[in-house]
Amino acid sequence: MKKFTILLPLFLGGLFFAQTKADSLEFKKISDEILTNGQAYNNLHQLTKDIGHRLSGSEAYEKATKWAYEKLKEAGADKVWYQDVMVPVWERGKESLQIKSGKNSWKSLNMLSIGNTEGTGGKDLEGEIIYVKSLEDLDKMNEADVKGKIVFFNYPFNQTFISTGQAYGDAGKYRFSAASHVAAKGGKAMIIRSLSSAFDDVPHTGTQTYDTKYAKIPAVCIGVKSADELENTLKTQKVFAKLNSNCGMKGEKLTHSVIGELTGKKDQSVIAVGGHLDSWDVGEGASDDGAGVVQSIEVLRTFKKLNIPNNHTIRVICFANEENGARGAAKYAEVAKEKNEKHIFGLESDSGGFAPRGFGLVMNDEKRNEVKSWSALFFPYGIYDFSKKYAGTDVEPLGDLGTPTGELAPDSARYFDIHHTNEDTFEKVNRRELLSGASAMTQLIYMIDKNW
Amino acid sequence: MKKFTILLPLFLGGLFFAQTKADSLEFKKISDEILTNGQAYNNLHQLTKDIGHRLSGSEAYEKATKWAYEKLKEAGADKVWYQDVMVPVWERGKESLQIKSGKNSWKSLNMLSIGNTEGTGGKDLEGEIIYVKSLEDLDKMNEADVKGKIVFFNYPFNQTFISTGQAYGDAGKYRFSAASHVAAKGGKAMIIRSLSSAFDDVPHTGTQTYDTKYAKIPAVCIGVKSADELENTLKTQKVFAKLNSNCGMKGEKLTHSVIGELTGKKDQSVIAVGGHLDSWDVGEGASDDGAGVVQSIEVLRTFKKLNIPNNHTIRVICFANEENGARGAAKYAEVAKEKNEKHIFGLESDSGGFAPRGFGLVMNDEKRNEVKSWSALFFPYGIYDFSKKYAGTDVEPLGDLGTPTGELAPDSARYFDIHHTNEDTFEKVNRRELLSGASAMTQLIYMIDKNW
Repeated sequence: MKKFTILLPLFLGGLFFAQTKADSLEFKKISDEILTNGQAYNNLHQLTKDIGHRLSGSEAYEKATKWAYEKLKEAGADKVWYQDVMVPVWERGKESLQIKSGKNSWKSLNMLSIGNTEGTGGKDLEGEIIYVKSLEDLDKMNEADVKGKIVFFNYPFNQTFISTGQAYGDAGKYRFSAASHVAAKGGKAMIIRSLSSAFDDVPHTGTQTYDTKYAKIPAVCIGVKSADELENTLKTQKVFAKLNSNCGMKGEKLTHSVIGELTGKKDQSVIAVGGHLDSWDVGEGASDDGAGVVQSIEVLRTFKKLNIPNNHTIRVICFANEENGARGAAKYAEVAKEKNEKHIFGLESDSGGFAPRGFGLVMNDEKRNEVKSWSALFFPYGIYDFSKKYAGTDVEPLGDLGTPTGELAPDSARYFDIHHTNEDTFEKVNRRELLSGASAMTQLIYMIDKNW
Repeated sequence: MKKFTILLPLFLGGLFFAQTKADSLEFKKISDEILTNGQAYNNLHQLTKDIGHRLSGSEAYEKATKWAYEKLKEAGADKVWYQDVMVPVWERGKESLQIKSGKNSWKSLNMLSIGNTEGTGGKDLEGEIIYVKSLEDLDKMNEADVKGKIVFFNYPFNQTFISTGQAYGDAGKYRFSAASHVAAKGGKAMIIRSLSSAFDDVPHTGTQTYDTKYAKIPAVCIGVKSADELENTLKTQKVFAKLNSNCGMKGEKLTHSVIGELTGKKDQSVIAVGGHLDSWDVGEGASDDGAGVVQSIEVLRTFKKLNIPNNHTIRVICFANEENGARGAAKYAEVAKEKNEKHIFGLESDSGGFAPRGFGLVMNDEKRNEVKSWSALFFPYGIYDFSKKYAGTDVEPLGDLGTPTGELAPDSARYFDIHHTNEDTFEKVNRRELLSGASAMTQLIYMIDKNW
């Protein structure tokens, strides 16, 4: 038996070595193809410059769905279709915020209404601003001290977190849900410091949800500089605000996610990869999430171009409505469940087209360890981190059905400088960084397609 | 004995664990201090906006030396001094390049003379352009086919290399030394495609060296787009060039490197860390190498601010003349040798203030493995790659004296898009990326100071 137990590992070792070599060559082919012939950067230019920002429900979003349909065809999809999604329609309209202290005249601030917020109906809403240090402090305050006031939070991004996503999560509640806490105490509007890693005066919008038990009060964000100045002024004097905005929910609308696939050669089980096609209604939606859309299309294009024989169906989903409802994601999983489509993996790119460093993974330990066992193949491409346990918002509903999911994890330094702002433009995306991310995604999907 | 051999590793393991925990806490303190109170970004703003580009020998470089002296004082150096360095003085002056084909009129191209090049003395130099595919092809050509011509090379950056530094090295000879090959065959000027990873029309300057056996012919670079257009035009018709430039060497000048240190608490052996204070005479020298200078000053500031008891002397060197002579580096090593100063490590940052990924290291295997054994401490900060075997140009002469050396290895995607161009500005540097690099450098120097 001894001889056998020595030979078997040698034999398996030999097989392992030969396979690893073949995979390593395929990784190089994928990287070479994308870094030299990749279309993702040019496609992003079209999406951002020809269409621009595209909140779901808008005309621009409709244009984007047609564009995505054509791009998936062009990339070589066997089949492309629209998936119906009913989305909330939120419109910003005109908006302004002015403040006044002492004998000074009114001064305009750079501002954006928080998404999904109701505005002032085009009338001036005036009131005294009160600074409240934290949501916890607010919850402890007497109603009499808040009633009729405009509550101002200046909770900063924690710069010491290495992942800016962690800092975003930490400060997130001020945008996501604080307005209803203010309303619960009788406050009539809310102003918050933007969720931003930068130190400029650019306001960052984003979604929020009202607790329907309370009044739907207007909620706006201002830039970091203005927020610090305002906090400072409030230390010594009263400050009044005049807010005027037209924003609000305008019902619902039928629109679409756009889906294209390369049909599986061995079976019809699905590897899903996507980004969200919608964006906030500012900037160009380049990093959030034009990048993820064009990278996902690039995965399909590369499989087709290199003639990689995909065992399973590689399906690209350009999701509708991630930003203010995530209805596209919910609908996709609902249909997959109805049709009893087996999904073996769901991957999203929604953290910007920055230099890739790894993948967040949500799956059992066995699968995770299998992915980690491929690390040496990824290392030469700067992909080394498989430790994070998260996946994109749009593949979460698939995860809830038991599908292993993940998200491209690019370097996080720059994303929250421009996230949900007028600065989220094509110019902030670097060609090589974007393409490297697409390459890493294609490499991971190649391995999963082959081994799962 | 058995008991002893079991207990000893346990005891050592416990010590190791306690040390690692202490180091891990120190790493966090360093990172927190730099990400929240770091001065590198503000300092870079001063250097780039108040002074701007600063080729050594220029007035701006003199200003920069005074600025660096003050910054090192401000950072808390025990001692700051100027080190004399005699540098070559190269001046660009006016320059223009026009081309003409068929019946078209003269057309101006974006161009830069290659650094250290002699110009046309302000007179028009006219001639026919011939496209030569490679330096190897040129070397095989007959003199008669080159004589009196303007040789044009269009050797592209190899986009498939994951490290853009490798692509720069691969294409480098066209800028570094090709002019003399052209002159050797009787060519009267040279035009090259810029060493660039981008696909724009921005010319990238940089240094070159003449072989003194041949005529010092003018040599210029043009942007990638213009280069491709020119190659294309030359396939079907003759193209003539009219070059006019004033550039040239204007003797030598005495200037300085600027040095500051925290004197060692245990001994006077030196850990050197630096960047080069000079830059090319275009843009603002932000990524090359303002970033390295302000990061190195940040290392000293952080040791001082956190009161980290440095065993050895931590010495920051703002080197003169890296770009067109590397005289500051040579002089520093010469003086170190003369004074018999023991150097235990030399680190440079000269690959841009982009998100750090690791360190290039030039040292024996024992030392390298010791640094690698610290990997787990660095991993949470995105620092994972200790595999590269290079060090900065300015610490190479220290390496020649037997000192272990290294270089911060940031992500390489964006550096060669802007390297040596008018685009190398403050705006291309991200605050968190720059500070993260400074933090990684401080962490590495902390470990080396403690263990070597």
